[in-house]
Amino acid sequence: MTLNYANRMDNIRASEIRELLKLTQRPEVISFAGGLPAPELFPVEEYKKVTAEVLDKDGTIALQYGPTEGYLPLREQIVKRMAKVHVNVTPDDILITSGSQQGLDFSAKIFINPGDIILCESPSYLGAINAFRAYEPNFLEIDTDDEGMIMEDLEEALANNENVKFIYVIPDFQNPSGRTWSTERRKRLVELANKYNVAIVEDNPYGELRFEGEILPAVKHYDTEGRVIFLGTFSKIFCPGLRVGWVAAEKGVLNKFNLAKQGADLQSSTISQMEIAKFLEMYDIEEHIEKLKVVYKKRRDLMMKAMEEEFPKEVKFTYPKGGLFTWVVLPEHMNAREIAVKALEQNVAFVPGGSFFPNGGHENTFRANYSNMNEERIVEGIKRLGKVLKETMYLKETV
Amino acid sequence: MTLNYANRMDNIRASEIRELLKLTQRPEVISFAGGLPAPELFPVEEYKKVTAEVLDKDGTIALQYGPTEGYLPLREQIVKRMAKVHVNVTPDDILITSGSQQGLDFSAKIFINPGDIILCESPSYLGAINAFRAYEPNFLEIDTDDEGMIMEDLEEALANNENVKFIYVIPDFQNPSGRTWSTERRKRLVELANKYNVAIVEDNPYGELRFEGEILPAVKHYDTEGRVIFLGTFSKIFCPGLRVGWVAAEKGVLNKFNLAKQGADLQSSTISQMEIAKFLEMYDIEEHIEKLKVVYKKRRDLMMKAMEEEFPKEVKFTYPKGGLFTWVVLPEHMNAREIAVKALEQNVAFVPGGSFFPNGGHENTFRANYSNMNEERIVEGIKRLGKVLKETMYLKETV
Repeated sequence: MTLNYANRMDNIRASEIRELLKLTQRPEVISFAGGLPAPELFPVEEYKKVTAEVLDKDGTIALQYGPTEGYLPLREQIVKRMAKVHVNVTPDDILITSGSQQGLDFSAKIFINPGDIILCESPSYLGAINAFRAYEPNFLEIDTDDEGMIMEDLEEALANNENVKFIYVIPDFQNPSGRTWSTERRKRLVELANKYNVAIVEDNPYGELRFEGEILPAVKHYDTEGRVIFLGTFSKIFCPGLRVGWVAAEKGVLNKFNLAKQGADLQSSTISQMEIAKFLEMYDIEEHIEKLKVVYKKRRDLMMKAMEEEFPKEVKFTYPKGGLFTWVVLPEHMNAREIAVKALEQNVAFVPGGSFFPNGGHENTFRANYSNMNEERIVEGIKRLGKVLKETMYLKETV
Repeated sequence: MTLNYANRMDNIRASEIRELLKLTQRPEVISFAGGLPAPELFPVEEYKKVTAEVLDKDGTIALQYGPTEGYLPLREQIVKRMAKVHVNVTPDDILITSGSQQGLDFSAKIFINPGDIILCESPSYLGAINAFRAYEPNFLEIDTDDEGMIMEDLEEALANNENVKFIYVIPDFQNPSGRTWSTERRKRLVELANKYNVAIVEDNPYGELRFEGEILPAVKHYDTEGRVIFLGTFSKIFCPGLRVGWVAAEKGVLNKFNLAKQGADLQSSTISQMEIAKFLEMYDIEEHIEKLKVVYKKRRDLMMKAMEEEFPKEVKFTYPKGGLFTWVVLPEHMNAREIAVKALEQNVAFVPGGSFFPNGGHENTFRANYSNMNEERIVEGIKRLGKVLKETMYLKETV
């Protein structure tokens, strides 16, 4: 029996990360592969109290269907979170989604006809690329430097392509590069989107996890015409297992997201929404985020130092000022997928970088996560990885 | 500013039920509109214990990312539920989804190119129709009687249309009609799907909520070639607010669903999956389902009796042997949308039937739910509704 699938299924690939995660669940593996928060920092005891409170007070509401747009007290709390990134919205501008991943899927569902163009950073988040692929877009990658997309390249792409539907950006501690856009580029991005009448999808899971300096205004802060769609999530500042994120957008646009949500899964979990709202009411999440930042900063520092000491000097990597990732660039002749196989033999995992480029290439790159492993494992893992890198470079050079 | 949306957005309509639900949240409204379980039967105390147990024992796992396919102990429990409808599967044949609604969305995402045909019962579940519409299918409605689709009509549709991708059916206590397929039709459905090489999407949220007679084997029980995709959910036998459902399908097909899931939202809530698995381990869900059946049966009996007494004799309605709904057919000249407005003035709500027909028409029908209102309100609501119906019929006749 061979069933006939839709054409779009030819484009969708299994996420390399999700597949890797299965391998890396072996406890002996030191994994820099996932984008997993540190589980030892989850507020488990607080969550237990919050759940008991929700069930005692509103048990039958918590277990029942709720509105598609989401639980109002949670949307009110999200308004406060949006203020942290300098965005002024009301609860009516918010739709709750199942993680920000669902916001990515909906963005393409709403805007993309087959053959339409999505402009994205090069590299970009592979989970977004995979979600978008289901709607058969073409990707145009825009080169980036330490301040964000190169604006001349972006304008050229906008000027020369009629069917660009949106620009997808992760301006803060980008996944996978760890880099952050300057405020000038953020402003200019909105100007260009206005000029060429395209939407901007701003994916911001890490903005509040800044270890150095001040939190920057989101791109949406500079939005003058309601064309920036902001995707937020509790996965990185709270817990990912709950699958609660949100979309903040202008009412006309948000209405489309609401329609997509109705069809996709009716609504996100009522009880999870109520629990998070209750947590935000009962506890100080700022304090919790401070704790995360202290630990993640320490791990970043340790990984940076270990990489400097253990990696061959030809290997370059970014210095993230927040978030979860650093991005490693090997000499051009090296292949990170081959290195990944050798590293796994030493029980060390990372994600080869090629998958983060929708149009391929760049096989000499990889992404390394520092939030999920403890200090000892970071040092040991980078040491082993350094050894694999040196051996491979030495082999390549003598062949 | 006017952004350019994808063509598919022209097809998607707001769910009439979801919009109605907002109106019917006023406490004075007697609502037969939603498909909501009785909240007073939710096992709130048990759920509290289950949650505490999960957080005490596996708190950090419960709040962390988990695998896309879902939590293994839950999938093992679902294997047992599938046995209840006479389907023999392994945990590897199961993918956890965010309610069965997500399984509907994925079914169309996986199979439908614009213009492909979905065969469905006439009427069919409007949430499915809306989910499917996003992928721009054409719908062919197949007439049904008290035993399911008319098989001659189904075969004619299959024989005369090349691009049929799947047949969508709700064989048990159908939403909206309340009717149930005979075993003969189930077998014949599979034979025809085999003959014409199409998939079957079997949506089965109510199969275990049978008040009379024995649970029938699911269509998937008769599946000889792995072409039946079974969608199940805990929404109706447990609690809908958790948004946990599943897809059971042959491995090749399930792999496509897994890819769709990765892109759509990575995975369903880890903690909700663990809580349900723990509930199934700690408590007897059969006992819980028995409780539901006693209450729902009583409410159905009461609604049937009240309709017989209060509705004009020209009004026909189905007698459901399980599930949540009865289906009301008014005389041809009457319009249920007009009646709905008048009924709402009397604080009574139902869903006009037209939306359940993807190709329109049948405005003289409506769906009435009996699971969500208590006995007193059912009697009072049907009484008021009977009065509105009589007044409208009388007016129409004298105009």
